[in-house]
Amino acid sequence: MAELDFAGPVLSEGGTWRFPPHQPLRLDSGAQLENLEIAYRTWGELNADGTNAVLICHALTGDQHVAGTHPVSGKPGWWTRMVGHGRPIDPAKHFIICSNVVGGCMGSTGPASINPATGKAYGLTFPVITIADMVRGQAMLVEALGVETLLAVVGGSMGGMQVQQWAADYPDKLFSAVIVASASRHSAQNIAFHEVGRQAIMADPDWKAGAYAEGKSRPEKGLAVARMAAHITYLSEPALQRKFGRELQRDGLSWGFDADFQVESYLRHQGASFVDRFDANSYLYITRAMDYFDLAAAHGGVLAQAFAGARHVRFCVLSFTSDWLYPTAENRHIVRALTAAGCRAAFVEIESDKGHDAFLLDEPVMDAALQGFLGSVERERGLSK
Amino acid sequence: MAELDFAGPVLSEGGTWRFPPHQPLRLDSGAQLENLEIAYRTWGELNADGTNAVLICHALTGDQHVAGTHPVSGKPGWWTRMVGHGRPIDPAKHFIICSNVVGGCMGSTGPASINPATGKAYGLTFPVITIADMVRGQAMLVEALGVETLLAVVGGSMGGMQVQQWAADYPDKLFSAVIVASASRHSAQNIAFHEVGRQAIMADPDWKAGAYAEGKSRPEKGLAVARMAAHITYLSEPALQRKFGRELQRDGLSWGFDADFQVESYLRHQGASFVDRFDANSYLYITRAMDYFDLAAAHGGVLAQAFAGARHVRFCVLSFTSDWLYPTAENRHIVRALTAAGCRAAFVEIESDKGHDAFLLDEPVMDAALQGFLGSVERERGLSK
Repeated sequence: MAELDFAGPVLSEGGTWRFPPHQPLRLDSGAQLENLEIAYRTWGELNADGTNAVLICHALTGDQHVAGTHPVSGKPGWWTRMVGHGRPIDPAKHFIICSNVVGGCMGSTGPASINPATGKAYGLTFPVITIADMVRGQAMLVEALGVETLLAVVGGSMGGMQVQQWAADYPDKLFSAVIVASASRHSAQNIAFHEVGRQAIMADPDWKAGAYAEGKSRPEKGLAVARMAAHITYLSEPALQRKFGRELQRDGLSWGFDADFQVESYLRHQGASFVDRFDANSYLYITRAMDYFDLAAAHGGVLAQAFAGARHVRFCVLSFTSDWLYPTAENRHIVRALTAAGCRAAFVEIESDKGHDAFLLDEPVMDAALQGFLGSVERERGLSK
Repeated sequence: MAELDFAGPVLSEGGTWRFPPHQPLRLDSGAQLENLEIAYRTWGELNADGTNAVLICHALTGDQHVAGTHPVSGKPGWWTRMVGHGRPIDPAKHFIICSNVVGGCMGSTGPASINPATGKAYGLTFPVITIADMVRGQAMLVEALGVETLLAVVGGSMGGMQVQQWAADYPDKLFSAVIVASASRHSAQNIAFHEVGRQAIMADPDWKAGAYAEGKSRPEKGLAVARMAAHITYLSEPALQRKFGRELQRDGLSWGFDADFQVESYLRHQGASFVDRFDANSYLYITRAMDYFDLAAAHGGVLAQAFAGARHVRFCVLSFTSDWLYPTAENRHIVRALTAAGCRAAFVEIESDKGHDAFLLDEPVMDAALQGFLGSVERERGLSK
């Protein structure tokens, strides 16, 4: 895929927003983060009315590099299908914001950051964070950037959890919201897979109870195993079968424990390349935030109550037929709650065999749905006719 | 569940069959195992006609203790629902045989055994074994026990793979065959989950490239992670949800990385108790055997060819609706091949939300199906009217 770097007339900016000590991030746990830093990128320009800002929320292992070139991997941003010239989210007409979540490892304050109180990396002394904490940090950034309302807040997977949290906590700042392949809470199976990943990391002696920043080794083997297990859940069984089946790496079997099957080699590669760009403690904290997420629980057990203040917000929810991580039923559950709350909610279940990762891949129906939804939102907002 | 130890008039015997050096086990890899030992148990007595022997084949982490008391865990055998007085497989009328597979760790020759050539544990010098190798070893044991034909060979999961292999390699020794929740080859997703488990074991520094028998530590953390990942695949998503949902261990969240959710605690327990009874290298070898299993590939790519010699054998295939490890489609694939080969094959898909592990659990429809099938087989064999 050609990289879209928005060279030329479109502004592409970014960096790290450092909040002053008197603006700490209050956390759901009761703790607070001083010297908060939020790493972000923007594309396009805010219009005079301040009505064209679009916030994109990233998933578990994503970051602020939704477009452009990723500085570590050198690869294109993670959603260049959706963000770019002529794409549903277009820097020619939108002011696009994407920031690294609190707890992340691409520049925002997280467990690898230096704790100002000790001068050392937080490690496991970093407070446990929640999806609501991530969103509170984003809201601080959005305000700092001079944006009062968002034309749309958009996210897939964990990004979709953040979108729901925005609708619950900051409905008056939203004009529309797009939730893709997400859930309003983790199922027992979701938690179970995350727990396997955390146990794999914590089983690695190089993890050193989270204090590996001091030493030379990082818990790369444990993190790679965690990524391998998670990666299986991102793909559907038919997609894996279609892509790899029982194809071998070489002619014949090795009669040993090398990667005989292509799917083994692929998984090992997924694990090995992930550790180059991700921090093991961030993985622990972000998976924990996802497991803790339960939007209904925070609203008397009724999800519709979470959306009671968002009746003026237009919603679009997308799911994929072969997504077994956050299946259609979970997304439909959100749509039902939105409808019960009196919100306008469009819902599209997209036929795909690509599993959960479909939202990051070539799915023309998703492009068309988002193009149509955002076009309609823009007309309603008076941005186009 | 009450333990069924067949006390009283029914013989319960067992031990380890040591084959003499001139009877090595020839392996598919080209290697052979000298001084082969097969650990086994039997219940009941072979009748005068030698027509009442039933061989039970165990799954990945099972062993010869299908009934009675497990000597390590102290718990009842793994299939006391199916094997016992008044059960479909009944020591009052059957001569029941169950043996630990070659490569296992409950007494049969495996990677933890002493290599007679070196006087040390094999470790990774143990040859890679296959499902056909396991079955070849069982056939040697069955013959050694004086049994010429089997009234039935029965197995679930990997046990069902062995049953298929029996039908392909020793059809003339079989009168009937029962395949429960199995597959004729591993899918890419099956291989992927096994590879995650192997990588978790091999990432553990205590694994020491398989040579941990020399030292004091075993790769328990890696093996526990492997078990946790695998265990998720044995249960359906609805069963996990029904059993655990988002229930907490204590009042409130820990805001840390303790087991907050009951499903986390359950998984950790599954991992921790597994390492007490299983050997990490055996886990590598047996998962490898399952990944290598592809019965059609060994017969010109046509599964029906594998069963061409088994036209006289009566088959029963059972699957469970919520089994996503070896789903109904995989079992139906076997039934189709059996039918194409001209075999008589009964097929029952059992409604259950218990996932793959349903075959080990309380499923009255399974009991009834097996009771009916084996009763009919016994009548046809002249054992009853």
